[in-house]
Amino acid sequence: MLSLSLCLATVVALTTVTAQAPSAQAYSSSLPIQEIQGIPAVNPVKQPWIWPLPQNWERGSNTVKVSKSIRFEGKGARQPIVSKAIKRYQDIMFKKEDYPMIPYNWSTTDNKPSRSTLSTVVIDIKSNDDHLDLDTDESYTLTVPVSGKAVLQAETVYGALHGLETLSQLVQYYPERKSYYVPNAPWKITDFPKYKHRGILLDTARHYYPIEVIEKFIDTLSWNKLNVFHWHMIDSTSFPYVSKKYPELAAHGAYTPRHVYTAKDIKHIVQFAKERGVRVIPEMEAPGHSTSWGYGIPEIASCLNAQPYFGYTVQPPAGQLNIAHPKTKEVVHGLIDEWAELFPDSFFHAAGDEVVMKCWENDTYITNHLQNTNQTLMQLFENFVLDMEDHVRQKKKTVMVWQEMLLEYHFNLPKDTVIQVWVGSEGVKEVTSKGYKTIVSAQDYWYLDLGFGRPRSNPYPEVQGAGFNHWNRVYSYDMRANLTKTEADLILGAEATMWGELADPNNVEDRLWPRAAAFSERLWSGYENPKGEELVSADAILRLLPWREQLVLRGVRAGPLGQGFCTRNPLDCFQPPNPAA
Amino acid sequence: MLSLSLCLATVVALTTVTAQAPSAQAYSSSLPIQEIQGIPAVNPVKQPWIWPLPQNWERGSNTVKVSKSIRFEGKGARQPIVSKAIKRYQDIMFKKEDYPMIPYNWSTTDNKPSRSTLSTVVIDIKSNDDHLDLDTDESYTLTVPVSGKAVLQAETVYGALHGLETLSQLVQYYPERKSYYVPNAPWKITDFPKYKHRGILLDTARHYYPIEVIEKFIDTLSWNKLNVFHWHMIDSTSFPYVSKKYPELAAHGAYTPRHVYTAKDIKHIVQFAKERGVRVIPEMEAPGHSTSWGYGIPEIASCLNAQPYFGYTVQPPAGQLNIAHPKTKEVVHGLIDEWAELFPDSFFHAAGDEVVMKCWENDTYITNHLQNTNQTLMQLFENFVLDMEDHVRQKKKTVMVWQEMLLEYHFNLPKDTVIQVWVGSEGVKEVTSKGYKTIVSAQDYWYLDLGFGRPRSNPYPEVQGAGFNHWNRVYSYDMRANLTKTEADLILGAEATMWGELADPNNVEDRLWPRAAAFSERLWSGYENPKGEELVSADAILRLLPWREQLVLRGVRAGPLGQGFCTRNPLDCFQPPNPAA
Repeated sequence: MLSLSLCLATVVALTTVTAQAPSAQAYSSSLPIQEIQGIPAVNPVKQPWIWPLPQNWERGSNTVKVSKSIRFEGKGARQPIVSKAIKRYQDIMFKKEDYPMIPYNWSTTDNKPSRSTLSTVVIDIKSNDDHLDLDTDESYTLTVPVSGKAVLQAETVYGALHGLETLSQLVQYYPERKSYYVPNAPWKITDFPKYKHRGILLDTARHYYPIEVIEKFIDTLSWNKLNVFHWHMIDSTSFPYVSKKYPELAAHGAYTPRHVYTAKDIKHIVQFAKERGVRVIPEMEAPGHSTSWGYGIPEIASCLNAQPYFGYTVQPPAGQLNIAHPKTKEVVHGLIDEWAELFPDSFFHAAGDEVVMKCWENDTYITNHLQNTNQTLMQLFENFVLDMEDHVRQKKKTVMVWQEMLLEYHFNLPKDTVIQVWVGSEGVKEVTSKGYKTIVSAQDYWYLDLGFGRPRSNPYPEVQGAGFNHWNRVYSYDMRANLTKTEADLILGAEATMWGELADPNNVEDRLWPRAAAFSERLWSGYENPKGEELVSADAILRLLPWREQLVLRGVRAGPLGQGFCTRNPLDCFQPPNPAA
Repeated sequence: MLSLSLCLATVVALTTVTAQAPSAQAYSSSLPIQEIQGIPAVNPVKQPWIWPLPQNWERGSNTVKVSKSIRFEGKGARQPIVSKAIKRYQDIMFKKEDYPMIPYNWSTTDNKPSRSTLSTVVIDIKSNDDHLDLDTDESYTLTVPVSGKAVLQAETVYGALHGLETLSQLVQYYPERKSYYVPNAPWKITDFPKYKHRGILLDTARHYYPIEVIEKFIDTLSWNKLNVFHWHMIDSTSFPYVSKKYPELAAHGAYTPRHVYTAKDIKHIVQFAKERGVRVIPEMEAPGHSTSWGYGIPEIASCLNAQPYFGYTVQPPAGQLNIAHPKTKEVVHGLIDEWAELFPDSFFHAAGDEVVMKCWENDTYITNHLQNTNQTLMQLFENFVLDMEDHVRQKKKTVMVWQEMLLEYHFNLPKDTVIQVWVGSEGVKEVTSKGYKTIVSAQDYWYLDLGFGRPRSNPYPEVQGAGFNHWNRVYSYDMRANLTKTEADLILGAEATMWGELADPNNVEDRLWPRAAAFSERLWSGYENPKGEELVSADAILRLLPWREQLVLRGVRAGPLGQGFCTRNPLDCFQPPNPAA
């Protein structure tokens, strides 16, 4: 039984292609074959070719040509953030290949080519407020008629940005006609995110990321309708932040003068992100993971560079904040003051993870202080942490912390604290059953940096990989498992993480994409559509394959999901159940 | 106990750095701090900063300035291959950073700055013959005196290329002086490879690689003193080779007209590789893994696209060569004729791996043929394979095959056949104990494509990674384990593999490097130096860290080996034994 013959009706043959130098191949090679058809390709995708999948969509069977000089009009199109986005999307929506691995008209019925051309999009935005926050309305409605103007409506500019992204994905290219089309018109899409907080943590302390790499990272977030950049800027290994009040921290704690972030850099990034609907939430990693502070201001560090480091820290080099020293509190307050201004977001991450008690227990400054003040180390630790968090709250910020604060140390955290779960997926139940809001970064599913050697410790020994979270594992994780409705409603969203032990600008894009795209669909589209139908990975892969191709075209070094043959013929490869797998 | 104070004597502080826009940061950010020293860095490397480590080296304690207009003279410098290489290295040797993660003068004693400047290198090559083969002499001698001309001597141009690479690695940059130096002169290096065959397999069938990506791959091989590109060009999933005699194979078996290799492409790649001392060995994957042949010439394929594919093939799509059909033999001979000419190398890979009997057992053409000719399937298979290999031998080529030919099917292979071991490291003993020469690609150590989902089958199920070979696992593998001296002498060398299920131009560099560099040192430098001292990974990592930085500077997207802090302070991170690891 041959699938080819069975599938011929839906096979899209690349016929009538004439020989020419392929654009992606700089070395010029004349093709001696006038007509290369290529191996057959078939993808019986039933959902629209849009990533992440919109909540509600209706489509027809007409193919509407799109003018390359498409215009955007209406008051919404003149809003500054939107008008910049239009310029970007006028480029992005026409970024296609002459010889794509996936023919662009898979999802079309293509029976009734419309005589009209789509040359105008009207943008209508209800609110003039461009404040971006957890509760920002990101919904939009997009209609593309068979003839006449397309209309994009949104409550805010940020909904309009998502609508532009969706529109850009509707536009396909027919190489044989050298023209762009929206297949399956008329379209009516009514879309909104299931979860409000959809982020990725990037660690710029273990390895430094130049500004333009962060820009590209933020662009890619926005294309995937993710809306939070959790900036893990500082850690034990380096202190790249150039503080106005404490310049000695970066002077001695940054790797080199090239590896720093100035106030100007941060303002630029925050504005760049805002223009793409992405919030930037800073994490002030303290009092653990903070060796690098001690290079500039030695008195605020305990067990600085203790040797060997085993037992003093989970990773070299040893050193965490001296929580008894008054100077420490002063510096922490000072940095919070600076960041509260530089990062306008209403969330502020106060960390609190992976503290090692032995570091403090062996510091005579700390032990003397405990004796003099007649308190335990755990009391001192809690007071330090609550003071730091209070200082953040005084800036009118919502405090985010890592799960240890609640689940390991059982500190007396106000109920408005947002707890980020990371140790394992079981933490989601533990946090929400206590009535706290949570953001889910369960490392057993959504840590994207693992699998390249012993993950959280020294990479020296002869270890093989473990912990690599395959795209389908990422996609299949249900944050709501074992939760009551009340508990599930406490999930604000989630973050995938890209810790920096083994990632840097050279490999970060392949590590993130397309797996972070699988993550993004769960956050935006959820687990069921509004009709209650389950969204399953067997459908998702048929759309994720072309979306990965599109990311590559946009310049993202996203690795492949399978053999090239499987990109063209996913049903032949991704068909469960598979006894050989 | 603080390591910093202990290490101060060897710490290299980046002092007197004045503020300026960092070159690697396009977004302009003025640095407000006039002097950023950065966190201390120390690497007590004892061996020269050369990757892979030369066999014999002597060095002194003078620092010799290097002129940026360094000249190369002597008859050897005018040899065409060498003169082109000189142009490349005049660029490469001065590729350094103003703010490197690893200060460039770690390995220097820097006590006696020489007053003279190195401005001339004399190149002396004994042989005019530029034939490149397994037995090509790749040795060289390089001397850099305290004053006067450096001298590079080699038997062949290929030894001279290796000498130029070594010279380029000797040149360091002192940012504070904006000048280039060779530290530790005088140098005398006498170098040669321990193994003759040092290669990497690249799979351009599962995913296509444009010509310029292959060029960069070959460049990177040569920088690591690797000398074989094993070109796995065709497989079940695509047939990109544009045959003169059978153009229908690519017309229907390539992915698209963009995804092809013409005779012109191949000639270009072979010449490009030769100019870098790299042999190109083609693999004619047959009679398994050959579905794609059947799209162009259906009668030469069995079980073409059988559905479901499970049981007919190890990977979709199903289909392997019809070994009973006379046309099959004709096509195989025809393609061998073409490749024997296009690939001048004396080695030719005739594959023979992962055949699935059920495919043939269910093909009535084959079963009828077996009945009519009164032979078993295994006899037919052996006759087909031996005929194919004989045809290769008629072209005066050495036949390479995958291990199944010998270890699974026990075919009657001539003793001059070179057996490539891949299933597991235990195969090395099995092959050499039978008296065959071998090339080692043990997947438990030297497959670099694994660890990103179920490796050899369908990536669909919810699997976590397994099989990722960490750099230290790659480095630590001793091919000679459990072998007698006679058996060990049958190892011609090795190949690391980059199969294409989950690798393509977007991620291949991070997948390969720096792990393939760890591999390369074992092949070039071996397991002991000429004095019999063991080469261990604890020393290697101190040189591999700066070599990875150098690869990045040369444009290779090699991922990091650990946190940035560990790049600057490897002893704090890579110190065995580590109870926390």
